[in-house]
Amino acid sequence: MPSSPFPLPPGAAIGIVGGGQLGRMMALAAARLGFDVVILTPDAGSPAGRVAMREIVGAYDDPVALATLAAACPVVTFEFENIPADALAALQAHGAVAAPPAQALAVSQDRLAEKAFLNAAGLTTAPFAAIDREDDIPAALERLGVPALLKTRREGYDGKGQAWIASPDAGAAALHGLGGRPCVLEGKVAFHREISVIAARGRDDAFCAYPVGENHHEGGVLRRSLAPAPGWRTDQPRAEAIARRILEALDYVGVIGVELFQLADGALVVNEFAPRVHNTGHWTLDGCEVDQFEQHIRAVAGWPLGPTAPLAAVEMTNLLGVEAEAWQALAGDRTARLWLYGKRGSAPGRKMGHVNRLRPLP
Amino acid sequence: MPSSPFPLPPGAAIGIVGGGQLGRMMALAAARLGFDVVILTPDAGSPAGRVAMREIVGAYDDPVALATLAAACPVVTFEFENIPADALAALQAHGAVAAPPAQALAVSQDRLAEKAFLNAAGLTTAPFAAIDREDDIPAALERLGVPALLKTRREGYDGKGQAWIASPDAGAAALHGLGGRPCVLEGKVAFHREISVIAARGRDDAFCAYPVGENHHEGGVLRRSLAPAPGWRTDQPRAEAIARRILEALDYVGVIGVELFQLADGALVVNEFAPRVHNTGHWTLDGCEVDQFEQHIRAVAGWPLGPTAPLAAVEMTNLLGVEAEAWQALAGDRTARLWLYGKRGSAPGRKMGHVNRLRPLP
Repeated sequence: MPSSPFPLPPGAAIGIVGGGQLGRMMALAAARLGFDVVILTPDAGSPAGRVAMREIVGAYDDPVALATLAAACPVVTFEFENIPADALAALQAHGAVAAPPAQALAVSQDRLAEKAFLNAAGLTTAPFAAIDREDDIPAALERLGVPALLKTRREGYDGKGQAWIASPDAGAAALHGLGGRPCVLEGKVAFHREISVIAARGRDDAFCAYPVGENHHEGGVLRRSLAPAPGWRTDQPRAEAIARRILEALDYVGVIGVELFQLADGALVVNEFAPRVHNTGHWTLDGCEVDQFEQHIRAVAGWPLGPTAPLAAVEMTNLLGVEAEAWQALAGDRTARLWLYGKRGSAPGRKMGHVNRLRPLP
Repeated sequence: MPSSPFPLPPGAAIGIVGGGQLGRMMALAAARLGFDVVILTPDAGSPAGRVAMREIVGAYDDPVALATLAAACPVVTFEFENIPADALAALQAHGAVAAPPAQALAVSQDRLAEKAFLNAAGLTTAPFAAIDREDDIPAALERLGVPALLKTRREGYDGKGQAWIASPDAGAAALHGLGGRPCVLEGKVAFHREISVIAARGRDDAFCAYPVGENHHEGGVLRRSLAPAPGWRTDQPRAEAIARRILEALDYVGVIGVELFQLADGALVVNEFAPRVHNTGHWTLDGCEVDQFEQHIRAVAGWPLGPTAPLAAVEMTNLLGVEAEAWQALAGDRTARLWLYGKRGSAPGRKMGHVNRLRPLP
C-alpha cells in the first residue's frame, strides 16, 4: 500500500478535471501555494489549461486521459459535479486520491437522490415528488399544489432543465418540454430571500464556513451576491450547522456550496448543494484572507483549513455574455475588482467574468 | 504604422522576459484580468512558465526566441532589469511594445549611471565616486571617508558584488575581491531606517504609489518588510515625490521599486531603484485591493491604474533557502498568508517564498 501523500508537499501536482473558470481560479490558488496543476479538459486551450503546467485534452471518460492525469497527480479534484462515476473510479484505480468523494458527486448529480439524502440527514427541503412518467404528475400536483417546479433529475444548471407548472392541466406539456426525462417536482417555497453558505471540510475532519451571502438570480442564473449578507450573524449558526451536517454525512473533503431559501420567519430550507467551489463564493477572492479556491486546495491537499473571517463585505456581480465587453469601463472603475475568465467565445448568459466591489462590513 | 494595441483587450497575450517568482506572480495577476501570458526563460519548467499559457525556452539574447516572443505578444515586460539592450531593441523591431522603457533598464543596470541620473533629477543619493581602476581609490576614500561601500557598477543584487572598505589601505584588496571590475564607491549613509516606495506610472502618465514600507535586510538580502511603515503618513508625500520624479524623468510605464535611506532627521536619500515589481511590494498581495503585480500589468497593458490604499498593514517575511521547508508549520499558521514560488531547487539565501501577516493599520 502506498504511503499517504498528505499533507501534499509544495511542488507536487494537483489534477483538476474540467477547464473552465472554476478550474482556472483553483489553479491560480494552487500556484500561490507552490503546487503545479494539471488540467483534464475536452477543449484544448481551456481557461484553466492556460494557467496550468499541463493540459491533458480528452473526454472525461477517456481511459487514457484519466490514466495520464492520475499518473501525473497524486491528488485529483473537480471543477464541476457531472463527472461520470466510472471516471472517478478510474482515477482511484490508477492511484490518485480523488476529492470530493464519489458519493458527493453521485448524490448531487441526481436532484431526487439529493433531496432524499438531505431529508435523511434531517434537513428541510422543498416538498417534492418523483416524476418518472406522465402518470405520476396528477397525484404529485395534487399533493404539492401549483405553481410547482418540474426539474430534470440530471444535468440541469443555471436554470436549464426546469419548467414551472402553473396549473394542474399543464403538467404533461411541461414534462414533454423537458424531453420526457425522469424529473422531480418541487412544491413552491415562498421564500423571503435566497442565501448560500460556502463551507469546507479538511482531511482532518476540520470544518469551516464563510459568512453567508445573499444571492439574486435572473432567469435562473446568478446575477449578484452580497456577502456577508445583511443580518448574517443571525443566520450564520444555522447555515453552518446545515453545511456541517451535509459535509459529515458525505465524509466530504473540499469546499461545498449550499444554496438555501430563507422563509419570512427566518427558517432555512435547503435548495441544493454543489460539491465544489461555487459562484456565490467568488466574493471571498477579495473579501477574505483565504478565498474559497485556496480553501479547496488546502482541503484536498490535506493542509489545515485557513481562516474564513471577512475583511470586508463584497458585492459580487457576474458578467454574463456581452456584459464582459464593458471591460474597458470596468478597468477604469476604481471600485471594481475585475476577474475575467479568459473564455474565447461569448454566448448569451455565459459566465465571462465577475466584479467584486468592497463594501463596509454589515 | 500599426494601430495602438492599447488598452490591451482581455484575451491578448502579454510577454514576460524571465521565469522566476516575479514573473510568476505577474502571470497570476494577468490571468485574473483575462490575459494570456507567454514567458521567455532560459530554464524549461520555470516557476513562471508553469503558470503561463506558453513558455519559450531560450537565452535572453537569442534572436529566434525574442522574435517568437514578439510575434506572440503585442506587449512585453520584464521581471528583472539585467536585460541586454539589444534584446529590448529586437523585441521592438519585431513589433512588440516593451515596458518599462529601455532607458530605465539601462540606467538601473549601472550603479554609476543610476546615481548620476538620480542627482541630475535633483534627488539626493549617497556621496559616490567612480572607481575604474585602483588608482582612483585613494582620492575617493579621501573625499568619502571610511567606512565606504565598494560596489560593482553592474550585476550586483541581494548584497552580491559589494564590499565594505574599513580603512584607507584596504581599498585595493576590496577592488581585487570584486574581480577588478568597474565599481562605484559609496560614502556611508548613517541612516535611521530603510524604507521603500512602490509606485507606478500608466501609459496615460497617471501616477500612483503604495504606502511606504519599512525594510530589514540581513546579509544584503531582504528579510522582512512592514507596510505601511510606522509613521508612514509623514514620509509618504516626500517618498511619492521622489518616485514620481524618477518615473517622469524616465518616461516610465509600469511599477518601480525605490529604496530609500531615512536619516535621523527624517530626510530621505535614494539608495537605488529597480525598474520592476519589487520584493518590498509583496505585502500588497494581501494588503491592498490591487497588488503591485496587477498594477504593473494594468500599466503595461495601457489600463487605468488601480487603487493603492491599504486594507491592512502587512508584515512580509521572506522564506530563504531551507526556511521554505517549514511549509507544514506555515500552512497551519492561521495568521500566515503563504506564497511559495514553485522553485525546484533550494540554495542558501535563495528566495523560495514569502509570508504575509496582517496587522492593524498604523
